Amino acid sequence: MTNAETKLKWEFGMNAEIISIGAELTSGQNVDTNSQWLSQRLAEIGIAVRFHATVGDDLKDIVAALRTAQARADLVIVTGGLGPTQDDLTREALAAAAGVELVLHEESLAAIRQMFAARKRPMPERNVAQAWLPHGAEAIPNHLGTAPGIWLESSSIPQAEEPNPRAVLLIALPGVPSEMHAMFREWVRPRLIERLGGAPFVIIERKLNCFGAGESMMEEKLLDLTKRGHEPQVGITVRDAIIALRIRARAASETEARRLIAPVEDTIRQRLGHYVFGVDREELHEVVARLLMEKKQTVAVAESLTGGLVTHLLTLVPGVSASLLGGIVAYANSAKENLLGVPRDLLESHGAVSAPVAEAMAVGVRQRFGADWAVSTTGIAGPTGATATKPVGLVYIGIAGRTGVRSYEVNWFGERHEIQTRSAWSALNALRLHIEGRPA
Amino acid sequence: MTNAETKLKWEFGMNAEIISIGAELTSGQNVDTNSQWLSQRLAEIGIAVRFHATVGDDLKDIVAALRTAQARADLVIVTGGLGPTQDDLTREALAAAAGVELVLHEESLAAIRQMFAARKRPMPERNVAQAWLPHGAEAIPNHLGTAPGIWLESSSIPQAEEPNPRAVLLIALPGVPSEMHAMFREWVRPRLIERLGGAPFVIIERKLNCFGAGESMMEEKLLDLTKRGHEPQVGITVRDAIIALRIRARAASETEARRLIAPVEDTIRQRLGHYVFGVDREELHEVVARLLMEKKQTVAVAESLTGGLVTHLLTLVPGVSASLLGGIVAYANSAKENLLGVPRDLLESHGAVSAPVAEAMAVGVRQRFGADWAVSTTGIAGPTGATATKPVGLVYIGIAGRTGVRSYEVNWFGERHEIQTRSAWSALNALRLHIEGRPA
Repeated sequence: MTNAETKLKWEFGMNAEIISIGAELTSGQNVDTNSQWLSQRLAEIGIAVRFHATVGDDLKDIVAALRTAQARADLVIVTGGLGPTQDDLTREALAAAAGVELVLHEESLAAIRQMFAARKRPMPERNVAQAWLPHGAEAIPNHLGTAPGIWLESSSIPQAEEPNPRAVLLIALPGVPSEMHAMFREWVRPRLIERLGGAPFVIIERKLNCFGAGESMMEEKLLDLTKRGHEPQVGITVRDAIIALRIRARAASETEARRLIAPVEDTIRQRLGHYVFGVDREELHEVVARLLMEKKQTVAVAESLTGGLVTHLLTLVPGVSASLLGGIVAYANSAKENLLGVPRDLLESHGAVSAPVAEAMAVGVRQRFGADWAVSTTGIAGPTGATATKPVGLVYIGIAGRTGVRSYEVNWFGERHEIQTRSAWSALNALRLHIEGRPA
Repeated sequence: MTNAETKLKWEFGMNAEIISIGAELTSGQNVDTNSQWLSQRLAEIGIAVRFHATVGDDLKDIVAALRTAQARADLVIVTGGLGPTQDDLTREALAAAAGVELVLHEESLAAIRQMFAARKRPMPERNVAQAWLPHGAEAIPNHLGTAPGIWLESSSIPQAEEPNPRAVLLIALPGVPSEMHAMFREWVRPRLIERLGGAPFVIIERKLNCFGAGESMMEEKLLDLTKRGHEPQVGITVRDAIIALRIRARAASETEARRLIAPVEDTIRQRLGHYVFGVDREELHEVVARLLMEKKQTVAVAESLTGGLVTHLLTLVPGVSASLLGGIVAYANSAKENLLGVPRDLLESHGAVSAPVAEAMAVGVRQRFGADWAVSTTGIAGPTGATATKPVGLVYIGIAGRTGVRSYEVNWFGERHEIQTRSAWSALNALRLHIEGRPA
């Protein structure tokens, strides 16, 4: 029953079930976010998920969960349990549920060996287990880790003598989110769409990423769009002071959905102006890096409060080395003086957390690196360090360019790492507005 | 079968299952955190959760999920589906699974009326539905909302004529976390402990955080401890190349559990030696910062590949400013030369990604900041930048101290940000071993 004859084309309205494997999930140590992610991705191509199940690392329990799923779903996606250790049982369970043996998949073994060779490490014998796949399965390539995924045709009834088995497609992916996401997007998704004979409808989401004002302030400008029942839907979410507006449309085709989204996006952009910095997965550091690369301009960074975070965020962008010359983390006052040339009397009269020091840091680092732009941060991240006039969360950002230097005061609250992260966004956003020629 | 005779006292080792109800969960709109929370609370009183299930708002599907759970669990906790609207079906499903009718529970109706009266609002007729409970059920009071919970004795076999039914306790709680938490803590938890004949034991977990070798290599040294059935249990999880060994003991008291953990911890420490860097929630950058602060030593950082991340991780630790003087992110070769004093011929003959350059960066930054220690990173984060002899993921770490300089080659794979993060851990770990006087 794992042969080609069961490869039916699914009907519209097929059911999917997602099974997450791992004792760290049933014990409550970790929360299962993979099921949510997969449910969203499947909905986008018109596949409804009816059940999620979570099972610990127990072969009997996993097989039982698979059998239950085979009886009620047309597509079963399993995440987790594909590692090399003794408690990774998904391969074995899948073979049992499909009624086949595990066989060594030479191509996958070669890929695993290659993965270790590239790292110049010996391959532990244990990792060979990852190349044993159920007979008849296709291996789903994993470019980010050693565990191949599994694509296996099976049936709703393991006992072949029973009548009318349905075709059930079993897919197993690693539990590591980055690996799982890439494998789903690159390999599984196109195959599923092909299997569906094209997706019956599409859901398209356009995200507008904003920075520089609070959630309530933004929502007040958009109340007519965010109200329930508005089509396309508009939702607001916030993370680390970055506000995401999601415009979501459902239509027969991607073109049609995008046609519905366009006027709503225009309205939002008109109302929010320069608060909108990017779309979809674009992040603030990516926008800044892209602007610099497009304009063939360079930047250097001087950080106190953020301790290297602004620079690091920019280095996350591939190819940024043409524009990012580097940075100096001047945590100690002596470093601000010696490495950035901040005058000692400025540090003494205004204190390290002050607008003049932020400006001197930016000017100093710009000159030392010979950059077109410079950005600086100084502030009080807490929990200690506050004074009567300078509370935790007080931050100054400096921006230096060809035409001079400016500084901005920002006040954040939150924990140390939150103040650091939000201040890094403030610095990048101020830089963005300057590069775009519309400083706040 | 819902009468008192089935109220057996459970055996040690009973199984629980958690069922979450709601289309917003199966569709991926929301992530289910209730199952995680309940799993943790049940573990604390010695009840192991073997399965989680999530079902949409469909009566047939919910009843099916309940029947599956009754067949394999002694305790089933359902969250969600207790609201007043048409798609709230948990009451009906529970009655069907237990084989009883819904009856109006006058006391609950009075409580709901009271809730509206207290808020000076008229009670919508629809809310009466929340007072219809399965026959024989106890209502679990809800002081934060209108939905009473349900405590219902049932059996593993709905068909009473079959032999040997087990007692199965069905509990339903609202999906709203604040209501669910309060009702579990105040009402359900004490009843469950009573049912167990007093909380039979506590579960204590000790985590050993390790770095410097792969998961399989570590497990190979601990196979006798990680094998199923070993007490205390030892589990391995990995995140960003940091390996956590969890020792989990179950005993009558915390003291007793810690007494069981101690020798296992000793054994692991003996076998893994310097790979173990911290316990429980301690992170690598915290350990390094603590060591430096204890020894009143200072550090400076020179980063290329990691672009400020190593410095930033250290600045996450409150009070680190006494030990962290600062850092230089020398992304461009000119910055390596001008700001760190890396000789140009070294850059030209060996390339920026090389052991001699990593060493020169560390020496240069140590001298410029006048620090006791210096750490440097240089490497290829990808996706571009690889050459025939230098693949993506090739990284060199330099450590300079009073007695000289050393470098280390590391090879990572993964995405750009993963290579950066893992390399930052490599750098911090090398620094840790040097400060501890046992360089690798």
